[in-house]
Amino acid sequence: MTYFPGISDDEFLRGDIPMTKQEVRILVLNKAKIRPTDIIIDIGAGTGSLSIEAALQAPQGTVYAIERHPEGVDLIRANAVKFGAANVEVISGTAPTALQNIPKADAIFIGGSGGHLQEILKQSNYLLKSNGRLVITAITVETLYEALHTMQAKPEFTVEAFGMQVTRIKHIKTSNMLQALNPIYLITSTKNI
Amino acid sequence: MTYFPGISDDEFLRGDIPMTKQEVRILVLNKAKIRPTDIIIDIGAGTGSLSIEAALQAPQGTVYAIERHPEGVDLIRANAVKFGAANVEVISGTAPTALQNIPKADAIFIGGSGGHLQEILKQSNYLLKSNGRLVITAITVETLYEALHTMQAKPEFTVEAFGMQVTRIKHIKTSNMLQALNPIYLITSTKNI
Amino acid sequence: MTYFPGISDDEFLRGDIPMTKQEVRILVLNKAKIRPTDIIIDIGAGTGSLSIEAALQAPQGTVYAIERHPEGVDLIRANAVKFGAANVEVISGTAPTALQNIPKADAIFIGGSGGHLQEILKQSNYLLKSNGRLVITAITVETLYEALHTMQAKPEFTVEAFGMQVTRIKHIKTSNMLQALNPIYLITSTKNI
Amino acid sequence: MTYFPGISDDEFLRGDIPMTKQEVRILVLNKAKIRPTDIIIDIGAGTGSLSIEAALQAPQGTVYAIERHPEGVDLIRANAVKFGAANVEVISGTAPTALQNIPKADAIFIGGSGGHLQEILKQSNYLLKSNGRLVITAITVETLYEALHTMQAKPEFTVEAFGMQVTRIKHIKTSNMLQALNPIYLITSTKNI
Repeated sequence: MTYFPGISDDEFLRGDIPMTKQEVRILVLNKAKIRPTDIIIDIGAGTGSLSIEAALQAPQGTVYAIERHPEGVDLIRANAVKFGAANVEVISGTAPTALQNIPKADAIFIGGSGGHLQEILKQSNYLLKSNGRLVITAITVETLYEALHTMQAKPEFTVEAFGMQVTRIKHIKTSNMLQALNPIYLITSTKNI
Repeated sequence: MTYFPGISDDEFLRGDIPMTKQEVRILVLNKAKIRPTDIIIDIGAGTGSLSIEAALQAPQGTVYAIERHPEGVDLIRANAVKFGAANVEVISGTAPTALQNIPKADAIFIGGSGGHLQEILKQSNYLLKSNGRLVITAITVETLYEALHTMQAKPEFTVEAFGMQVTRIKHIKTSNMLQALNPIYLITSTKNI
Repeated sequence: MTYFPGISDDEFLRGDIPMTKQEVRILVLNKAKIRPTDIIIDIGAGTGSLSIEAALQAPQGTVYAIERHPEGVDLIRANAVKFGAANVEVISGTAPTALQNIPKADAIFIGGSGGHLQEILKQSNYLLKSNGRLVITAITVETLYEALHTMQAKPEFTVEAFGMQVTRIKHIKTSNMLQALNPIYLITSTKNI
Repeated sequence: MTYFPGISDDEFLRGDIPMTKQEVRILVLNKAKIRPTDIIIDIGAGTGSLSIEAALQAPQGTVYAIERHPEGVDLIRANAVKFGAANVEVISGTAPTALQNIPKADAIFIGGSGGHLQEILKQSNYLLKSNGRLVITAITVETLYEALHTMQAKPEFTVEAFGMQVTRIKHIKTSNMLQALNPIYLITSTKNI
């Protein structure tokens, strides 16, 4: 059974927590090349929208969702129940500390770093299996710059990056309105050794 | 005395009325080539942000600001007072009806059409002086399509168009966050006869 | 075996034919929800980049790639050989005429219409199975407008649409340059009956 | 006599030198608030498109156009002649060295830094008059990041920044095609002392 990522944003419980939008989730999951048995770490999991779609694409694997805000932790758990993603393990805490007892991973997402990007990248590098994929999403100039420079300096990684700007079309009566989502950059690093 | 358009969006009184954003106003005013003595019509004036910057650039001219929502009419008047733009005449009503007693214009802006774009374009064509500039801003697929097709079919006009997507950079503590404004298209038509 | 769409654009043989770019292909394939046994029609297949990724995702299905330019037809065939996509059937001709002997499909892509969009949409509607997905990609204002209006008028379809603007980051020496791809709109219609 | 920036890109002689596009020039010139008597420095002037529009807007002032590529130097001179901008002084050389004998300026543009951004910013800070405006255009992640961080660290400057992505609409027969220009960020710093 093939799982197609693409749960509608409205279906997730979300409170006031920022959420990676559907079109972005689809590209993150594609770039991470999630297989059915993969071990995945989602750092800064927010509402869990990405964790849950990854978990549904890896039904024989496990997703470790790291989140430091209690409201986020509750939302991830509630969303995991809602979408039947029993293989999401929620870890309440701050990376990189919260990463200590997690097994090596096939794919790691970094969606939030709480100001500890360098330490998280170092720990992610250690936790990533050979041929593993690290996908960083950046919504600030600083994360974009630091993610590119840190990963491009590591000869054991192949790095590719792009930005995307999605415009949703909202159909109201006889009009189709153009509504921007915030731009986001994806930096994908594949471990070659 | 040169006037540089570029009042900060936050300085305008705005209520819940949509506003043409600063970067867009600058380009609309540039494309309209506003001179100190110009007669200008602003159809769907909203908060009056564009009307007021046009009025300040045309201190010996007049801006006729047409707006059908009473809340908008009040905001335009209040903003005109706030920025000392005594040469803004606010007309409460719906175009094209509200355009009946307005003199011929050097520049016309269409920012909202209330579903009457074709009639407004017809009346604008009539009201525009020789060498006058008509700048339509489109935030829906329908306005973009109809503005392009109607104006490109008129041999007496030269038409150029582009879209723009602005990303504001918001400096919060040590981060610079990327925040999208909605995309907008500008269709500029110059009357050649 | 899971197939992850995402062949690099550079790997396709492409001549001077326009190509749907990788990030866009990934989203088109996701929105079309391609399953291993699906029958797929790709109208205006160009270089075949989308046909081939669809074929690799549907190894027990068939992709009918319709293309009117002989140079495109040759490129699709050469790319199908290069990527081992034996289940791509190339049809040289113009839609809707070229669609006459094609079986009913689970997914239809429209990437080019040669000025016959209305007839192609009518024929696509007929050819699409129940619960089938029609994904139109638009790079002109006209295709965007007509696709939205035609599909939104059909009560048997659920329509969603968005635009995307990808910025590739090109790493040259110590710089990461921002390079735009052209914007594109995706209009996805799902047949409810 | 009001000058409206907005010479068409096609009118400039340009060779293979990259050029700041018209919509961007308009916003750079607006943010720089060019007055008729201003002294302006354009660092990395390229084809001179920005220098020339600034010179036409400051007919009693002077624009110092710094360019290190001989092909660029020739183009700036040829464009200055073509558009009658006698007040453009072309300086062949590399900044910051080439900035040594230039008078203090009301506005400085930095469009290219040749890897010496920090030294150029230091020298620009020195050369900028009180209330002067420094507008940096960034087409790489590095220039964006460094410009923001360097200028935001200087308490004597007020900094604002935004990115823009322009989509030109090209009218071909009955179609209006969407064609992206590369994204660009503008970082404007105003000296408060």
